[in-house]
Amino acid sequence: MFDLMRELALEGTTKIVLLVVDGLGGLPREPGGPTELEAAATPHLDSLVARNVCGLSIPVAPGITPGSGPGHLGLFGYDPLACTIGRGVLEALGIDFDLGPDDVAARGNFCTVEADGRITDRRAGRIDSEIGRELVEKLRAVRVEGAEIFVEPVRDYRFVLVIRAPDLGDDIEDTDPGTTGVPPHKATARDQASQRTATMIQDFVDQAADILKYDHPANMITLRGIARRPPVPQFEEVYRLRAGAIAVYPMYRGLARLVGMTIFQPGGNLADQLGALRRHWDDADFFFVHYKYTDAAGEDGDFERKVARIEEVDAAMPGIVDLGPDVLIVTGDHSTPATLRSHSWHPVPVLLAAKTCRPDAATSFGERACLQGGLGQIEAKYLLPLALAHAGRLAKFGA
Amino acid sequence: MFDLMRELALEGTTKIVLLVVDGLGGLPREPGGPTELEAAATPHLDSLVARNVCGLSIPVAPGITPGSGPGHLGLFGYDPLACTIGRGVLEALGIDFDLGPDDVAARGNFCTVEADGRITDRRAGRIDSEIGRELVEKLRAVRVEGAEIFVEPVRDYRFVLVIRAPDLGDDIEDTDPGTTGVPPHKATARDQASQRTATMIQDFVDQAADILKYDHPANMITLRGIARRPPVPQFEEVYRLRAGAIAVYPMYRGLARLVGMTIFQPGGNLADQLGALRRHWDDADFFFVHYKYTDAAGEDGDFERKVARIEEVDAAMPGIVDLGPDVLIVTGDHSTPATLRSHSWHPVPVLLAAKTCRPDAATSFGERACLQGGLGQIEAKYLLPLALAHAGRLAKFGA
Repeated sequence: MFDLMRELALEGTTKIVLLVVDGLGGLPREPGGPTELEAAATPHLDSLVARNVCGLSIPVAPGITPGSGPGHLGLFGYDPLACTIGRGVLEALGIDFDLGPDDVAARGNFCTVEADGRITDRRAGRIDSEIGRELVEKLRAVRVEGAEIFVEPVRDYRFVLVIRAPDLGDDIEDTDPGTTGVPPHKATARDQASQRTATMIQDFVDQAADILKYDHPANMITLRGIARRPPVPQFEEVYRLRAGAIAVYPMYRGLARLVGMTIFQPGGNLADQLGALRRHWDDADFFFVHYKYTDAAGEDGDFERKVARIEEVDAAMPGIVDLGPDVLIVTGDHSTPATLRSHSWHPVPVLLAAKTCRPDAATSFGERACLQGGLGQIEAKYLLPLALAHAGRLAKFGA
Repeated sequence: MFDLMRELALEGTTKIVLLVVDGLGGLPREPGGPTELEAAATPHLDSLVARNVCGLSIPVAPGITPGSGPGHLGLFGYDPLACTIGRGVLEALGIDFDLGPDDVAARGNFCTVEADGRITDRRAGRIDSEIGRELVEKLRAVRVEGAEIFVEPVRDYRFVLVIRAPDLGDDIEDTDPGTTGVPPHKATARDQASQRTATMIQDFVDQAADILKYDHPANMITLRGIARRPPVPQFEEVYRLRAGAIAVYPMYRGLARLVGMTIFQPGGNLADQLGALRRHWDDADFFFVHYKYTDAAGEDGDFERKVARIEEVDAAMPGIVDLGPDVLIVTGDHSTPATLRSHSWHPVPVLLAAKTCRPDAATSFGERACLQGGLGQIEAKYLLPLALAHAGRLAKFGA
């Protein structure tokens, strides 16, 4: 699909807005009852659906519950099965670390080991973030020959390690054995290209063990999800779109950065995000606006709060519509039903507004209504090509 | 899918008719209004939909607007992304040139160059077809060592060049620079296998330049879309169908010939085409009937004429139904909304009539009704396997 996009994408002056309402899709609280989206009063979204087209987005494949990484890559037009992001990379993105192509990132845990090296607590008694930061500060003293080292705190007992050096392989087993009663694994390369990386990582771990040996309970570290940034084709190169991201949470900014978007730093709430959208309207052709709090409410199992958050999004719609985007897509990266308190595999309502929409029978924005929508049930990765088409930014394929 | 078809396809005596109403899908003229198909009075098509099954066909992929080549390859069961047809080939098909497997075809333009070789007019002042034919006649004097050469007029300043010789590569850059102020490019191979072809083409161009040098304004040529016929599996071999095509326009006959169909030459209008279908009813198992004028009306932006053309098709339906095909499919190769005056990416209404159809909720043939159809939204390439199934021509897969 990328080669096709590269071949067909046209320069243009049209504007596309992708509003991701995180975890938008839901489930009824009681049999036959409304979902969160159906329960919410959403006059503006309903009106957009009535005049345009809607459907359901399948984030990855039927039955597959995506994390935020694959969920967003799909919405950005990438095949989330072909383009995977290592956990170390996602962790680094999540703290706004600007990962370069020469960086190998790993998620680190402080842990507790006995004198013989066996792990007794994989999370070092869940030390708090303040202690975690102090220990990270100590680890910054580590030097590894031929590489630049970054150690960054995440939260509690978690940190990120980044090794920066040219041509490092990243096929390396976790040092975290995933259990207690055994020592951490040695850093082991699974291919020739990663031998040097493994040596560097083990060098880091050995020095870290030495630095931490008198600390308690955090006297050792484990690493997992050791990975480089995937070689993701960049938005501008593939789609000929100058793309900008307006996201409050760092991980979503990181995902946007990964695909080559410019970060338009918003303030903390939706009104601030709309302000940033207005201010930067001339600076990009494509805007990714990320709204987090629907997902958070779903994860908390708070049906009512998720309803309220959806209504907050609805109230913001006129502010987006008034800017006059040529194409507006509102959807989620996945469903987060409050009844499940977690991400789910259920398809996600999607609406697409543009002058070239074919009418369908749907007149409100909700899971049931979207089943009547003209988009049908569509893989998330096709939404961006559709947006480009409606924005007049795709040439004809073949003669 | 082809290997599967080869494995499962059965001989049979059943008949399949595929009626392609070119550019069938449309858009409303005013918000919420009917599309061309919805506006048309189509009692026969409606009745077929009510008793059978319908849906929407996605020609290539969501958002992708196909040309006629990919649009038809999809309907013939081929993956239009895997099987692409060069412009030179399509141009040759479009003038009924019977391209062989050893032929490399290019689309040619007569152009105007200055004394220093730089192009001043890429279309030689759009010389008329009569002059084009005379110039083509002159170019037929060119001889190239080791190859047979064909030069055929197309229209105005356009012609087709075919080089026939065994084992010619076809990965060659256009000599057309796509702009004025620079000379035509030299014929340049992009791979080793095409070196010899490039040499032959440059030899042709040099001789053509010499022949044309005193002509004005057409004193030079450019070539583009240099390509061989793609190695398309043949209908009979893959599907065990004797297939025949009844198409008024040469390009569609050419596409049919490409996949191994026999050409049943019709007269000029739909009644003549039905006559040919009747006459040849015993000569094939599969009939591709192509109706062009809906697309032409859409391209002209003439909503009313497209409606009238659809009604003409509807009036012809009893003549097809009376022949008693076991499976009848009516669809388009793509949408051509009159409001857009061009092909578009919108899914195309499709109806499939057979004794084994499962009923659905749709009772009329139109874009909105087809959203209720039992076929759902289906990639065009799956319609032929479905037709085979309904015709009792596919064995069970696996035990």
